[in-house]
Amino acid sequence: MIFGVNFFPVVDPAVKNAPSYFDDCLQLTRLAENLEFEHIQAVEHYFTPYGGYFPDPVTFLAAAAAQTERIRLTTGAVIPAFTHPVKLAGKLAMLDNLSHGRLDVGIGRGFLPDEFAAFGVPMDESRDRFIEGIEACRRLWSEQDVVYHGRFHRFGPVTLLPRPIQRPHPPIFVASATSPESCGWAGRGGYHLQVVPSVTSREKLAEMLAAYRREWAAGGGAPDGGRIQIKYTCYLAKDRTRALRHARTMEHNYVDKMAGAVASWASTRSDCYQGYEQFVDKIRAYDFDIALRNNKVLAGTPAAVADQLATIRDWYGDDLTISLQFNPGFTSLTEACQAMELFGTEVAPLFAPASATVS
Amino acid sequence: MIFGVNFFPVVDPAVKNAPSYFDDCLQLTRLAENLEFEHIQAVEHYFTPYGGYFPDPVTFLAAAAAQTERIRLTTGAVIPAFTHPVKLAGKLAMLDNLSHGRLDVGIGRGFLPDEFAAFGVPMDESRDRFIEGIEACRRLWSEQDVVYHGRFHRFGPVTLLPRPIQRPHPPIFVASATSPESCGWAGRGGYHLQVVPSVTSREKLAEMLAAYRREWAAGGGAPDGGRIQIKYTCYLAKDRTRALRHARTMEHNYVDKMAGAVASWASTRSDCYQGYEQFVDKIRAYDFDIALRNNKVLAGTPAAVADQLATIRDWYGDDLTISLQFNPGFTSLTEACQAMELFGTEVAPLFAPASATVS
Repeated sequence: MIFGVNFFPVVDPAVKNAPSYFDDCLQLTRLAENLEFEHIQAVEHYFTPYGGYFPDPVTFLAAAAAQTERIRLTTGAVIPAFTHPVKLAGKLAMLDNLSHGRLDVGIGRGFLPDEFAAFGVPMDESRDRFIEGIEACRRLWSEQDVVYHGRFHRFGPVTLLPRPIQRPHPPIFVASATSPESCGWAGRGGYHLQVVPSVTSREKLAEMLAAYRREWAAGGGAPDGGRIQIKYTCYLAKDRTRALRHARTMEHNYVDKMAGAVASWASTRSDCYQGYEQFVDKIRAYDFDIALRNNKVLAGTPAAVADQLATIRDWYGDDLTISLQFNPGFTSLTEACQAMELFGTEVAPLFAPASATVS
Repeated sequence: MIFGVNFFPVVDPAVKNAPSYFDDCLQLTRLAENLEFEHIQAVEHYFTPYGGYFPDPVTFLAAAAAQTERIRLTTGAVIPAFTHPVKLAGKLAMLDNLSHGRLDVGIGRGFLPDEFAAFGVPMDESRDRFIEGIEACRRLWSEQDVVYHGRFHRFGPVTLLPRPIQRPHPPIFVASATSPESCGWAGRGGYHLQVVPSVTSREKLAEMLAAYRREWAAGGGAPDGGRIQIKYTCYLAKDRTRALRHARTMEHNYVDKMAGAVASWASTRSDCYQGYEQFVDKIRAYDFDIALRNNKVLAGTPAAVADQLATIRDWYGDDLTISLQFNPGFTSLTEACQAMELFGTEVAPLFAPASATVS
């Protein structure tokens, strides 16, 4: 398995302000590079303590690129519904060049009603905008004199500058698919995949990944597709009690902030997001002990977390890239660095591709 | 006078590729900080060798912020017509936080028909979109629970995250105003001003600046307004012949690339851009020797450039911030560094606020 680092700010500005959060993330990025993590990733959200420090992940990743040499930079994800494809493809191409070809692009639909409302975009259009966004970016990156006549955007002939370094284009991940159908679609299209296990049962996630792998292979196993990134929050300390206490606090902070961000689902209905109206109840029902037992969250000593990862590997396959959040909520920089170092030195080596055994 | 550095890529990708251009700019940024220049700035353009390496100046400035501690980061400019104000205000607020409050925001209308066509925005709307963009960003930065009902965008109540560090908001510059009326509007609104002398006669620019200063003072001289940034390309070498030869080559490259970018003005008419249809002819008529004589371009030895700057100060005032391009076109990094160092050590000290005499 391959390991990366995920930054998803879920914190009240009164508790940790934005400059300290960003400073922490940049320092953790440099540490992650030293510890040979494969990537960092950043999300796109607005307005609330649930992700809202990152209205534009590219801005953060450009800063991270400028302080590193090797680690890959992943959007997890950008949302085409909120940005014109010429702008989106252009700034991502800048980042690919600034980083000398270290960009991985996760592209998502978005799922928060308040964000769609602010951008004046009907949620029912989100899937079509997402598909159009992927298609338009892909063409702007890989073709010259692009003429694009989509449902939402018409332009061309134009040739995007700068040309991305990675050819034919930076790797594209379909982000946060939540059904076997969406995962199958991603596989068939030759895209990579990003999934979030915390909101999906083990059985359903296994089914989603099977659909993805099957369709990807059926499509010929395009070499620019086939990678699976999966996200976990990781609370790690030499002392078990301390790790679990910290995990419990931060997970409750997460639940609280996420419930706030999805509150408008209580009064929103969309055929394109079936069941989302129960989101708040589902989140409020979160139980840390059950989540830990079901390996939705990683927490404990290095040995315990290694056990969890071995189980995850058994469940979902050993070809995964695991994207770990070490600084959730208002975790201090010191604690986050300690957790990342412990993981890099005591857990990751057990899963190195060369030494395939751990139990 | 205060001096900063301007990055405006005008180069054929076949001659200098994007990663080398970006690497050069980052190295020049670090050098500019060491030499105590006040700011760097980056432009927003698309598709052509006239500025097209920078479809999103914020992406570049975030990288520059991450490699510096003190120098200010200026957009020159961002174009609200091409980005939703929630996205624009959000990423600029991220940059303000990532840089610990070093952001200056130049905001412009845009003037290239091909860019407006690609974004599906009628050029006749550009002024209203520009004004609405400034207003919406300003409110998103300085107010909570913003309800915005503009002509092009309606949203709210929303509270932007992250909150900018600079309060009530990062300094706002009205960019590239081309008439006394626009400059007066900027002054009256309490904004700062960015102007480009190369496209304006000395008399007209003096009139524009007078209108700006008069209206700014009439509005009460708001302390968050009143700064004037003015852009020049600077070709500097100890050897006069070498400097002038280099200047002539790069200015012709500039004319050539700009003529390409504005070519569609030959077949475009807009009441909101009167006279722009003659743009191509005007550019093709560029004469380097006349431009040099009229101080539209700075070129020569340090003594000669200091003389030019003294004249510019006499013409336009000693309260200017001069933004200098040292790496125009396909200037090599070595040449650009030499020019910047010469300027920083031999020219800038002559204009330091403390020692007010030079002739």
